[in-house]
Amino acid sequence: MGGPLRRSEHKGWRRRRKRRPRDAREVGGDGPPATDTLPPVSDQTFFADGLAGLEAGARAELASDEVSHVRAARLRPGRRLAVIDGAGSRWEAELVALDRRRASCRLLAPVPPEPALPLHLWAPVANRDRSLWLVEKVVELGAATIAWIEWERSRSVADAGRSESFLRRAEGRARAALKQSGRGWLPRLRSPVAPEEALGRHEGAGWLADAEGGRRLGDAIVRGSAGGGAGPPLTVAVGPEGGLTHSERRRCRAAGFEPVSLSPATLRFETAAVVVVGWAAAMLEETKTKRTTRG
Amino acid sequence: MGGPLRRSEHKGWRRRRKRRPRDAREVGGDGPPATDTLPPVSDQTFFADGLAGLEAGARAELASDEVSHVRAARLRPGRRLAVIDGAGSRWEAELVALDRRRASCRLLAPVPPEPALPLHLWAPVANRDRSLWLVEKVVELGAATIAWIEWERSRSVADAGRSESFLRRAEGRARAALKQSGRGWLPRLRSPVAPEEALGRHEGAGWLADAEGGRRLGDAIVRGSAGGGAGPPLTVAVGPEGGLTHSERRRCRAAGFEPVSLSPATLRFETAAVVVVGWAAAMLEETKTKRTTRG
Repeated sequence: MGGPLRRSEHKGWRRRRKRRPRDAREVGGDGPPATDTLPPVSDQTFFADGLAGLEAGARAELASDEVSHVRAARLRPGRRLAVIDGAGSRWEAELVALDRRRASCRLLAPVPPEPALPLHLWAPVANRDRSLWLVEKVVELGAATIAWIEWERSRSVADAGRSESFLRRAEGRARAALKQSGRGWLPRLRSPVAPEEALGRHEGAGWLADAEGGRRLGDAIVRGSAGGGAGPPLTVAVGPEGGLTHSERRRCRAAGFEPVSLSPATLRFETAAVVVVGWAAAMLEETKTKRTTRG
Repeated sequence: MGGPLRRSEHKGWRRRRKRRPRDAREVGGDGPPATDTLPPVSDQTFFADGLAGLEAGARAELASDEVSHVRAARLRPGRRLAVIDGAGSRWEAELVALDRRRASCRLLAPVPPEPALPLHLWAPVANRDRSLWLVEKVVELGAATIAWIEWERSRSVADAGRSESFLRRAEGRARAALKQSGRGWLPRLRSPVAPEEALGRHEGAGWLADAEGGRRLGDAIVRGSAGGGAGPPLTVAVGPEGGLTHSERRRCRAAGFEPVSLSPATLRFETAAVVVVGWAAAMLEETKTKRTTRG
């Protein structure tokens, strides 16, 4: 956290990494290896198709849009890399063949994926750059799905998340963030839907990040009543720039969403979303750990 | 939260705002006015110099770099606006004179500022765009200072936060975020310093966002031991992309920093910082409210 980046766009950092011996433990600092972080991965991670059901020794093709990345990184056959499919499979692998259009690797050893978090985000249709940034952060934090909601006050947003090109870009940002984070599950990115449709298929507990929700988040932290009984699956819904309308708020509450708020200031939608998703993810990870320990 | 933007770059939203009656309550939705958010402000906020000690009726000059913004927004004398000085003063005001180089307003009514949070961030010297984004988020969340730390593993970062131009841009982003958020205090942005220097003048409690810190954040949330006794002033220190070195980590712990961590995944520094600062801010806001209520 704050934290090792195994793979970074950062020239300085990448340059220094190359000069030092490659040792997974080194990535997290020079202390003892962390015991409760994800397993170390090769410093280059790529998407590969059809990993489900394969065994050690099998060959796998990298996704077609990864070939140019492999070539740009000047990787040669024999090089170790990590391959993931975004659906929970992660392997240590070796690059065995590379030409202009295809890259193949041999699977060496599976790296057990962490379970996916039962955490879902409803984000408003909003400014494109802020939305793309939100996708990146939420992938790092481990959400399982991101749905774009057409709240009444996001209807006038013209330049944002409705176009095919936005959804393609969001997918790209999500894949990059997944490779960087060491996680194994690519969130499902859903096309924008009306709140009625999202509410109609909503299951489980929900938090509504809302300017008028009081200060439940801070209060919960101080009093230790965090979560308010909310358990998995958990959906975090964030309103649009103009706020929810009274009737939207009422319908969300009727569908079981608890209002949460974290600041008396006006937060941008993506700030609120990241803080609340981060909080929810930390809570769910901890609950998961406790269950695992007990079981 | 997630939440009303009184002032947005967003054409669609600004257009819609103009067609509707200007009513401060409307900004937060169409329900009753929120009681525990900051006081409503005019939908255009500008920095003004020398507000300290002024009284209603006094004239004040807008900061020189705001004049072009006033002109771009086609505001005319007679227009209501909010003026802030970033040091806790906020006034409802009326634009009274405008030419190419100066804009003056008459102060109408003071808006009581919220107390500043005793919250400080130590951020690594890192990628410029990610650092600028971090500044924006941390201003929204209410930190009082942001210091850039030259951790050993941020020394190789060449393109980032050491230049004068970076610090000027960071200041600009901070001012924009302050105007948007409704807060009254501009964080002090400090030039990069070595960890020894920062540790030497450190006072109060500290949290160290660290990949090897275990899962204190999630654990604290679930068990209700949040804060672990940490009280104000509170410093959140975030390590560089490569992680802290063993000796840096030891020195931070010796100086009273408690390690906190929130995810088994590799989070980018700015993701970790925003989640932990958001958590600390929510805790401090709540503690402040409780003290106010009791007193």
